[in-house]
Amino acid sequence: MQALYLDKNGLSLKTNLKRPAPRRGSSLVRVTLAGVCATDLELKKGYMGFNGIPGHEFVGAVEGPTSSPFLGKRVVGDINISCGKCGYCNTGFKNHCPNRSVLGILGRNGAFAEYLTLPNENLHIVPSNVTDEEAVFTEPLAAAFEITKQVKLSNNDSVAVLGDGKLGLLTALALNLTDARLTAIGKHPEKLKILNDAGIRTLTFGKRPITEKFDITVDCTGSKSGINAALSMTKPAGKVILKTTVAGERTVDLNKLVIDEITVIGSRCGPFDVALDALKKKRINVAPLIDSIYPLENGIAALKRAERKGVLKVLIRP
Amino acid sequence: MQALYLDKNGLSLKTNLKRPAPRRGSSLVRVTLAGVCATDLELKKGYMGFNGIPGHEFVGAVEGPTSSPFLGKRVVGDINISCGKCGYCNTGFKNHCPNRSVLGILGRNGAFAEYLTLPNENLHIVPSNVTDEEAVFTEPLAAAFEITKQVKLSNNDSVAVLGDGKLGLLTALALNLTDARLTAIGKHPEKLKILNDAGIRTLTFGKRPITEKFDITVDCTGSKSGINAALSMTKPAGKVILKTTVAGERTVDLNKLVIDEITVIGSRCGPFDVALDALKKKRINVAPLIDSIYPLENGIAALKRAERKGVLKVLIRP
Repeated sequence: MQALYLDKNGLSLKTNLKRPAPRRGSSLVRVTLAGVCATDLELKKGYMGFNGIPGHEFVGAVEGPTSSPFLGKRVVGDINISCGKCGYCNTGFKNHCPNRSVLGILGRNGAFAEYLTLPNENLHIVPSNVTDEEAVFTEPLAAAFEITKQVKLSNNDSVAVLGDGKLGLLTALALNLTDARLTAIGKHPEKLKILNDAGIRTLTFGKRPITEKFDITVDCTGSKSGINAALSMTKPAGKVILKTTVAGERTVDLNKLVIDEITVIGSRCGPFDVALDALKKKRINVAPLIDSIYPLENGIAALKRAERKGVLKVLIRP
Repeated sequence: MQALYLDKNGLSLKTNLKRPAPRRGSSLVRVTLAGVCATDLELKKGYMGFNGIPGHEFVGAVEGPTSSPFLGKRVVGDINISCGKCGYCNTGFKNHCPNRSVLGILGRNGAFAEYLTLPNENLHIVPSNVTDEEAVFTEPLAAAFEITKQVKLSNNDSVAVLGDGKLGLLTALALNLTDARLTAIGKHPEKLKILNDAGIRTLTFGKRPITEKFDITVDCTGSKSGINAALSMTKPAGKVILKTTVAGERTVDLNKLVIDEITVIGSRCGPFDVALDALKKKRINVAPLIDSIYPLENGIAALKRAERKGVLKVLIRP
């Protein structure tokens, strides 16, 4: 089969890879659409030291085995493949299973390919009124909703989402469904307009210094300095939700964190059911986030396009 | 009066300073014993850009004004002097008042002096069965107890305190009063023995790598790298309590924080009433933590002694 492949020589298009064979309890998924995430671009730079087929945002159709309960169904999939046996798996933290592999990120081939396999327990059926172009956003949208699992948000909370890239926009759209008093802060008026259209208050970085302080800030900047910007905008005894992963370490003003007794909460993957429900009920419109759709054979160009500053979601169609 | 004084020329002993005059609602405290904290040593290096009399750990006797409700009493004092009018002061967060001064740290002369003044609302009477040598530990012990206000600790929690300096030892002694399963990790066998004597399990850094992981780790190392050591020992979905403040920024592996969804909680000053109660009930023995007592006129030598690696609490007697 055809797939993008990352190794020490960088990213290449392979055309003669073996179609993966699903193990017992897993399904074979024909990928119909995949999304390029900032993490994929970080993998190219060496993040996680990943070798293999990248890609972890996808929608597809289950083509086998004949025993699969999902046969013929349209599915999306949780990207953490856990062992099911350890203390984490048995206490509701399977996303943190130390023996896990992660689709297209850690020890497992991903979605920039004609086919992938996943355990059946990872698969979720896509509601019929959700298009492939919407469903492909399930994984990053679930990551955005993870915040609502970690922090109870009420009308008492002023919340700022920092960053108007793909995850920043999805996060703002997801948190707009809570009662929190939301502000999105970004650099690109044309992107912030997507949020204004959804009724979200926005501020623009850089015009003049932002002196407003928030109870909770969410770093979706994808930038090494995002954490310090978030800390500087967070009220004493407030919270910073950290979404940004970037290759390398970051320099942080931790004295401010101690003095102001700020809590920093790392936030990663989230609940697929919540994301699919929001898409099904049309509570979130992801259409304005799509930049372009490339055929898989032009996948290298797709990632190049995604690397360009200001480009939103690039999709790849095998 | 006599006092230590920090300015751009460094630390000096002044002998002709004016005795401070208490404002309305404040008391004049004759300092009978003061403690040297790691923060004082950081101030000398430029932390907070502080100019004035340092020192914030003290016990003393109220000598005026005659209208003071504490006249003749032995007192310790909360170090944050808040405005009493702002949103933080009115919602129980007066320690985070943006208009606050902090005794011997920020905009207010401190305790390495014969006299200091503090608002009466900051003062706490020392129980008669608590000696000066015990009472002088109230402030750092309160900071240790702050953790128990921020995180509910139960027998389900494995907790590691990193660092066997002054704050590390006090923190371990304070958390030993909770139900958590406690381990203290340090480098100095003679200090860890103080904790062993209190029935606390200890591990020694450096002998061999510590591979054990904990639900909650507390960084009391006073070292720039303490945060990364704490992160590496914290289980996924666990918590790091950050106590360490050091001059300058720190480099942190924030990807681990995101991937493992770890929460980092900044922790500063704490409840004096809880600390005084523990001292009164003899639930904590601070005597083994005292290294030496210097007269105030040898205060510069006292701070030099405190700067030496491995030295525990140096006290200054005016």
